[in-house]
Amino acid sequence: MTDRTTLDDQALDTLFREARTANKWQDRPVPDSKIEEIYNLLKFAPTSANSSPARFVFIRTPDAKARLKEALSPGNLEKTMTAPVIAIVAHDTAFYDKLPFLFPHADARSWFAGNPALAETTAFRNGTLQGAYLILAARAAGLDAGPMSGFDNAKVDELFLAGTTWKSNFLVNLGYGDNTGLFPRSPRLSFDEAARLE
Amino acid sequence: MTDRTTLDDQALDTLFREARTANKWQDRPVPDSKIEEIYNLLKFAPTSANSSPARFVFIRTPDAKARLKEALSPGNLEKTMTAPVIAIVAHDTAFYDKLPFLFPHADARSWFAGNPALAETTAFRNGTLQGAYLILAARAAGLDAGPMSGFDNAKVDELFLAGTTWKSNFLVNLGYGDNTGLFPRSPRLSFDEAARLE
Repeated sequence: MTDRTTLDDQALDTLFREARTANKWQDRPVPDSKIEEIYNLLKFAPTSANSSPARFVFIRTPDAKARLKEALSPGNLEKTMTAPVIAIVAHDTAFYDKLPFLFPHADARSWFAGNPALAETTAFRNGTLQGAYLILAARAAGLDAGPMSGFDNAKVDELFLAGTTWKSNFLVNLGYGDNTGLFPRSPRLSFDEAARLE
Repeated sequence: MTDRTTLDDQALDTLFREARTANKWQDRPVPDSKIEEIYNLLKFAPTSANSSPARFVFIRTPDAKARLKEALSPGNLEKTMTAPVIAIVAHDTAFYDKLPFLFPHADARSWFAGNPALAETTAFRNGTLQGAYLILAARAAGLDAGPMSGFDNAKVDELFLAGTTWKSNFLVNLGYGDNTGLFPRSPRLSFDEAARLE
């Protein structure tokens, strides 16, 4: 029975305490191999019944960025157009069709296939969990992340996800942040404001 | 312009590659100070407009566990009753009332206060992100996590959140896992199955 390792202070700073949402980027590309590396970390983090509903479109080319542009809110435009990579965090509304492979020890497909309300909540909740894993996996791999929900979801679905069962959830800019673009860190709720012990 | 640190292999294993959802627990308590330590990591990870809507009830006493029992599905009963701590990951449906403090540079309260649909989506999405941060912060702090959505949300709300604007989202068992309770790891989707480069 081995103990888990505790992360050291530098790792905790990189993931949580010193990491900041990037608004400005160094002129330094993110290779496709880095994107795969991040996926191959986040895929291991837990989802309900291993449902793994998140799907990702990683936008890097000028052409794809130009298409994305019209779906963005004005305040998010410049930082997104200059980001080396923009991840569309989506989820597959028909995620349950993969459950015979992902969760082979029970007929988990049947829990969701006939229950659209449960399927939708499960896809949104667990796809969002995986979006958070993406943010922290990117930080763990040395990148900065800039998550955003200020955009037109229907437009992104139309532009990038037409003809699929995928639906957009939120966006995450990825790259090497330029700290001169940072705002001062905003306050956080204290433990007593956000939590209760029972 | 400093580079971010990349986490080493041991840290990546602890967070993602070797970490597993615990089903059985060592007989080893989790002190309240550890719970606060985890909150003080997760609180820094990003949410939309710093909205920080997640609220947490950490259940540790036999009395509180006995109350929780009737809300659990049978398959989740034993591992939850034996966990040292169970976190109710909830969100505050009136989270926007804290925005004048959390996001002082704009009138962000007004974006949500008159728009219940946007407020609800924002609370659920960002509260879920913070639930994922809780799972990874717990692992970073040397604990194992066991997230679950197989329970009666309305019953948990009635038992633990009555008289508040908090609503339950999912549960996370926390403690020091006993690896003899692990199932073999289930498969994951390959990069090409879950992602696309554009």
